[in-house]
Amino acid sequence: MNELPTCETLLLEHACGVLHITLNRPDCRNAMSLTMVGELRAVLASVRQQPGIRALVLRGASGHFCAGGDIKDMATARNAGQAAYRELNRAFGSLLEEAQHTPQVLVAVLEGAVLGGGLGLACVSDVAIARQDAQFGLPETTLGILPAQIAPFVAKRIGLTQARRLALTAARFDGAEAARLGLVHFSEADEQALERRLADTLAQIQRCAPQANAQTKALLLASEEQPLGPLLDSAADQFGAAVTGAEGAEGTLAFVQKRKPDWAK
Amino acid sequence: MNELPTCETLLLEHACGVLHITLNRPDCRNAMSLTMVGELRAVLASVRQQPGIRALVLRGASGHFCAGGDIKDMATARNAGQAAYRELNRAFGSLLEEAQHTPQVLVAVLEGAVLGGGLGLACVSDVAIARQDAQFGLPETTLGILPAQIAPFVAKRIGLTQARRLALTAARFDGAEAARLGLVHFSEADEQALERRLADTLAQIQRCAPQANAQTKALLLASEEQPLGPLLDSAADQFGAAVTGAEGAEGTLAFVQKRKPDWAK
Amino acid sequence: MNELPTCETLLLEHACGVLHITLNRPDCRNAMSLTMVGELRAVLASVRQQPGIRALVLRGASGHFCAGGDIKDMATARNAGQAAYRELNRAFGSLLEEAQHTPQVLVAVLEGAVLGGGLGLACVSDVAIARQDAQFGLPETTLGILPAQIAPFVAKRIGLTQARRLALTAARFDGAEAARLGLVHFSEADEQALERRLADTLAQIQRCAPQANAQTKALLLASEEQPLGPLLDSAADQFGAAVTGAEGAEGTLAFVQKRKPDWAK
Repeated sequence: MNELPTCETLLLEHACGVLHITLNRPDCRNAMSLTMVGELRAVLASVRQQPGIRALVLRGASGHFCAGGDIKDMATARNAGQAAYRELNRAFGSLLEEAQHTPQVLVAVLEGAVLGGGLGLACVSDVAIARQDAQFGLPETTLGILPAQIAPFVAKRIGLTQARRLALTAARFDGAEAARLGLVHFSEADEQALERRLADTLAQIQRCAPQANAQTKALLLASEEQPLGPLLDSAADQFGAAVTGAEGAEGTLAFVQKRKPDWAK
Repeated sequence: MNELPTCETLLLEHACGVLHITLNRPDCRNAMSLTMVGELRAVLASVRQQPGIRALVLRGASGHFCAGGDIKDMATARNAGQAAYRELNRAFGSLLEEAQHTPQVLVAVLEGAVLGGGLGLACVSDVAIARQDAQFGLPETTLGILPAQIAPFVAKRIGLTQARRLALTAARFDGAEAARLGLVHFSEADEQALERRLADTLAQIQRCAPQANAQTKALLLASEEQPLGPLLDSAADQFGAAVTGAEGAEGTLAFVQKRKPDWAK
Repeated sequence: MNELPTCETLLLEHACGVLHITLNRPDCRNAMSLTMVGELRAVLASVRQQPGIRALVLRGASGHFCAGGDIKDMATARNAGQAAYRELNRAFGSLLEEAQHTPQVLVAVLEGAVLGGGLGLACVSDVAIARQDAQFGLPETTLGILPAQIAPFVAKRIGLTQARRLALTAARFDGAEAARLGLVHFSEADEQALERRLADTLAQIQRCAPQANAQTKALLLASEEQPLGPLLDSAADQFGAAVTGAEGAEGTLAFVQKRKPDWAK
C-alpha cells in the first residue's frame, strides 16, 4: 500500500482492505474545518489508485459524526471577506464531489450529530448505517445562511420533495426517519446492532470483485448524467472486457468449482 | 404590503407573514376553473416581490382541496374547438410552473378530493399535509383524456415508478398512502392534528431567514436541471454573499448572543 | 389481431385485450437466453401496433420469474470472444429499452428468483406485483462481472441511493423489501393474494382508455428526458386532440350518461 497522508484531524486505520477514517475533533463534535476538508481530500486522492483498499468506513470520534461547518474558520473568513467564504464553501463541495466518485465502496456510520455539512457527507455514501437516535438536520437558514454546497446532494439523495421540506423548515429528524426518507439504508437501535450491521456490510462487500464494483459504481453515477443509449453501449463494452478479464475468469471458474473467488477469501 | 388582486374564486387572508389562500368554489368541490387559474397566477405574481410574505398556505373551502378541472369550462371550450382546450390546459401548466418556483414556502393542506389538477397543485408544494381520509387520484384516462399538464409534475414529485402505476390505473388512494408514496409529507388522523401540524410547520418556517429560504429553494429547483459543478460554483458565491449580508450578520450574531434573530420574533 | 411470432421459450395467451407472456424455461429458472431475448423483442415489436392489446402480463413458469443470464450462452460467447459477450449483453439492454417504451401497460408478476436480468425486467414494468417470499438481487459483481445493462434501469427505478447499495453489496432481498424500496408496487403474502391483485390491476386498466393510457405513458417517460416547458406545450396539444377525439368524446358522454365507456365493457 502507498503511504497515506499524515493527518491532524483524522484517524486512519487500514485493515483487511478496509480503510477506517475517523473524523477526530471531538471537542467540537467533529465540526468540519478547512484543515479537515483538505485532509479528507488528500486521503481520497491517495486511495484512488490503491486497489488494495476496497472499502472506506467514514465515522466520527466520541459518539458524533459531524456537527457541520467549523465556527472558527467562519470567523477567520469573516476577517478575510466574502471571497474567503466563497472558497471555504466551495472546497467543501469539491470534497463531496470527490467522495461521491471515489472508486471504493464508501460506508458511513452515523451517530449523534449529523448536521449541515455532516449530513452532506452522509449523502455521498454508498451504504449509510445510522443509530436510531442520531440527530439529522439542515439548520443553515435558521442562521441566515444557505446549505449551499449541501442542498444539491440532499436533493440527489432523497429527491426534491423531501429535500425541500427539510431545507426550508430546518426540521430535526432521527435515524429512523432518515431510513424512512431513504437518506440512510439502515437505522439501528444501539451500538451493538450498529457494529454488527457494519461487519455484515463489509462482509458483503468482500464477496464482490473490487474492479467490478468500482466500474459498477461509476456506471450508476454516470446513469444520472448521460443519455441511456450511449451509456448502455459503453456498458456492454465494459461487460465484454470484464467477463474475459482476470476477475471475470476467476469469478466464473470459482462458481463452477463451488469455491470462493480469491478476492473473497 | 402591496395590494393583492381582487378575487372571485379565492379567499385571501394575510396574517403574520403568511398568506392563506383558500380555493372557494365549494358547490363544485373547488374545481379548477379558468378564472381560478387566472386568479391564482395573479396572486402568485403579486406576492413574488413581497418579502413580507414568507409562506403561502393553499387549501380548499368546505372540506375539499380541489376536485380537478371544471366541467363548465370544458363545455365552453368544446364549442370553441381544439385550440381552446389547448389553451385552457396549458394555462394550468403555467400555474403549476409558477407555483413550483414561487419564492415563498408553499404549504398545501389537503382534505377531501385531491383529484387530477388538484393533485397536480399538491405536487408543487414545499410542505404537504394531508388528512388521512383525503382522496387522491388521477382519473383522466378513465374519461378518455390525459393528465397532460399534471403527469410530469407527478413524476418529478414521486418518481416515474409510482407515477406510472397511478396514471395508468387511475387508482384512488388516501392520505396515508400519499405519505407512503412521498407525495405528501404528513398524513394526519383528524382536523385537530392537521391544524396542529400546520401550526408547527409555520412556526418552523418562521425560524428560517426569508431570503436564505428563497435562495435555498431556488437552488434545490436548479439542482434538477443544471450540471452540478457550475451549480456549486454559483452556490458558493451565494453563500459568501449570504454570510456577509444582513441576514447572515443577524443570524450569526443572534446565535452568539443566544437570542432569536429578528425574523424569528 | 395480427399473428404473434412463434416462440420456443415463451408461452403466449391472449384473452380480453391482455397478452399473457410466460417465460418458459423452467429447468433453469427461466434464465434469459439469447433466444428468449430475441423472442421477447419480436413479441413486443408485434404488439406495438395492436391497439386491441391493452396490457401485457409478464411472468415466469413454475414458480420463478427469471434467474438472470443463461450460463450456456455465456459459455458459447466465451469461445467466440469479447465481441460476442458485448453483443449478447447489449441485446438484453435493447430488450429493456423496448419493454420500457411499449405502449401497452406492462404488468410484471414476480415469484421465486428475480435476479440480475430478471430484476432488470421487473424495473421496466408499469405495475409490479411480487410474492413476499420472492428473492431479488444483483449478484453480478460476486462473479467478477457487471450488471452492465441492468444497473442504469435499477437507478432509474429506485433512485441512485438504494441502487448503489444493492449493486455494490450484492444483497438479497424479498418482496416486502422490494415494495419498501419502491422496486415493486405490491408485495403479496401468497399465490391467492397475488392473483387477486393481478385481477384487480387488470380491471383498473380496463377502465382506462387505451390510447389515452399509451399517450400518458409516453408523456411520463418523456418527462425524464425533455425540458419541462416544451413538454407541457406538446402535452397541451395532445390534450386538445384527446378531448375532441373519439376516446374523449365517448368518455365524457359516458360520464354524463352515467354509464361505462365502450372500452370499459
